[in-house]
Amino acid sequence: MPLVEKRMNTVADAYHPELGAAVDHLLSSGGKRVRPAVALLMGEMLGAQPENLVTLASAIELLHTATLVHDDLIDGSLLRRGIATLNAQWTPAATVLTGDFIFAIAAKQAAETNSVSVMRFFAETLAIIVNGEINQLFIGRGLASRENYYQRIYAKTASMFELASGAAAMLSPVEADVVENSRAFGYEIGMAFQIMDDVLDFISDESQVGKPVANDLRQGLITLPALYYLESKPDDANLIMDIQENRYNGVVMDRLVNSIRQSGAIDQSLDEARQHIDRALAILARLPEGPEHIALEELAWYIINRLN
Amino acid sequence: MPLVEKRMNTVADAYHPELGAAVDHLLSSGGKRVRPAVALLMGEMLGAQPENLVTLASAIELLHTATLVHDDLIDGSLLRRGIATLNAQWTPAATVLTGDFIFAIAAKQAAETNSVSVMRFFAETLAIIVNGEINQLFIGRGLASRENYYQRIYAKTASMFELASGAAAMLSPVEADVVENSRAFGYEIGMAFQIMDDVLDFISDESQVGKPVANDLRQGLITLPALYYLESKPDDANLIMDIQENRYNGVVMDRLVNSIRQSGAIDQSLDEARQHIDRALAILARLPEGPEHIALEELAWYIINRLN
Repeated sequence: MPLVEKRMNTVADAYHPELGAAVDHLLSSGGKRVRPAVALLMGEMLGAQPENLVTLASAIELLHTATLVHDDLIDGSLLRRGIATLNAQWTPAATVLTGDFIFAIAAKQAAETNSVSVMRFFAETLAIIVNGEINQLFIGRGLASRENYYQRIYAKTASMFELASGAAAMLSPVEADVVENSRAFGYEIGMAFQIMDDVLDFISDESQVGKPVANDLRQGLITLPALYYLESKPDDANLIMDIQENRYNGVVMDRLVNSIRQSGAIDQSLDEARQHIDRALAILARLPEGPEHIALEELAWYIINRLN
Repeated sequence: MPLVEKRMNTVADAYHPELGAAVDHLLSSGGKRVRPAVALLMGEMLGAQPENLVTLASAIELLHTATLVHDDLIDGSLLRRGIATLNAQWTPAATVLTGDFIFAIAAKQAAETNSVSVMRFFAETLAIIVNGEINQLFIGRGLASRENYYQRIYAKTASMFELASGAAAMLSPVEADVVENSRAFGYEIGMAFQIMDDVLDFISDESQVGKPVANDLRQGLITLPALYYLESKPDDANLIMDIQENRYNGVVMDRLVNSIRQSGAIDQSLDEARQHIDRALAILARLPEGPEHIALEELAWYIINRLN
């Protein structure tokens, strides 16, 4: 992992110094580095070259970082993980270009794995992520269904876990079915990861996470706990639209948030995340043995046990 | 070439319909398609697989298109080639994402050439282009030297011609020195192409090009003709800063533009473009024979003979 950090941190060395400062700022502002960890563990277990894996893991975390830079610009977010976003300090022009630059370096590093299949997978994942954001922008909040939610979190999160895990297998001396299973493992933990994020948005303490409870809902974004809650209230047809169009004032919204927190919707969502982890562990059991097995199991459990 | 158009036009088929409409709009708004033409001709001459070449040519024109989308957004340009830009019609968010999406598809197609060297070259070129834009954003108009100008037009234009020509050679059954020469050919015609663009900005008729004569200079951007002119007036030290800080009113600017047009600076610039073309033709003469030789020669001449 320190090698991955180093690989990420040297990206802007040959380029404009302001870029280097921006990249430093972005990379030092935390992040759990779950995606590169998945790539490293899966690849080590399957026998990939360590150097190649470090390059892949760095490329994936940079791709993730680049998408966050453009996301924060688009959403006008001024803070991420409690630290000022790039667009809070820079002009939109510089922010767009810095995101583009990080995309370019991510693609360059992906190409340095010397694997055409990894490159294709990488580019396809970027297309899926961006297409997901465009969908959200256009159909936006119009469709509040679980089907739509699953598509959204696949594009936003699970696709990149799939890439981390599947591309690590592609760099390993294994058969196609192992690549397929590795990819499926990434998919399952990625879906669980985003569902947990969405549950935590409801059940976390405001003082811990630095943003109000049910921040998504307050911004009109309906995630899994709210969807389960709404499914249990089929008579209240206006509820969805009222939320999406921000028709609630603080007091009414607080009451709705409390109703959701106290309803069975939280447990239903947690249960669904657990089902993804169960499937991930079943897939893992079919993958070749290796000392990283336990670490990957722990990582899967961490995803549904983390508090933030 | 029709196959390239087709390949570009199908990019958004599997994605959101609004994206398809945006991509259609961008691709139908003209463009000389010089970069894909270079890739096709060079690759055919050197014996590359036609299908691979079409994929490469499409990837390059899409990369070019994606950079234009973000450029126009950054510059706030509302028209390109007389047609409304994306950002003139869409929100900044949608424009950023559409550019990202086209980058993703360009990278995907580059990966479909199945060549790791092409992929690397592709990603490196994107990094050079974006880094050039970032340089311009930060050091901006502070440095008016020919050295800075050459770096700028290399990043902005010649790097992509280098890619078109060099990557086509990489897809061909040729030795490393042929790839090197092919790349150098692209570099020379690319430099000539941008110098000619900058000369045409001074000598074109406003009614023909749809923007005022010396549009760049009026926006504080100093290109080769202005640089040669300023070099001939070493006593007038404030001139550069006055231009860069837009201190001139229309009448004074018109007088300056006329002085440049009537000075030797235009011929000096044209001469420099011709020297690049001469070098390109000398390199071409060293490349393997083929019926595409004549077409590449004509393309090189076209670059310095075109009126727009």
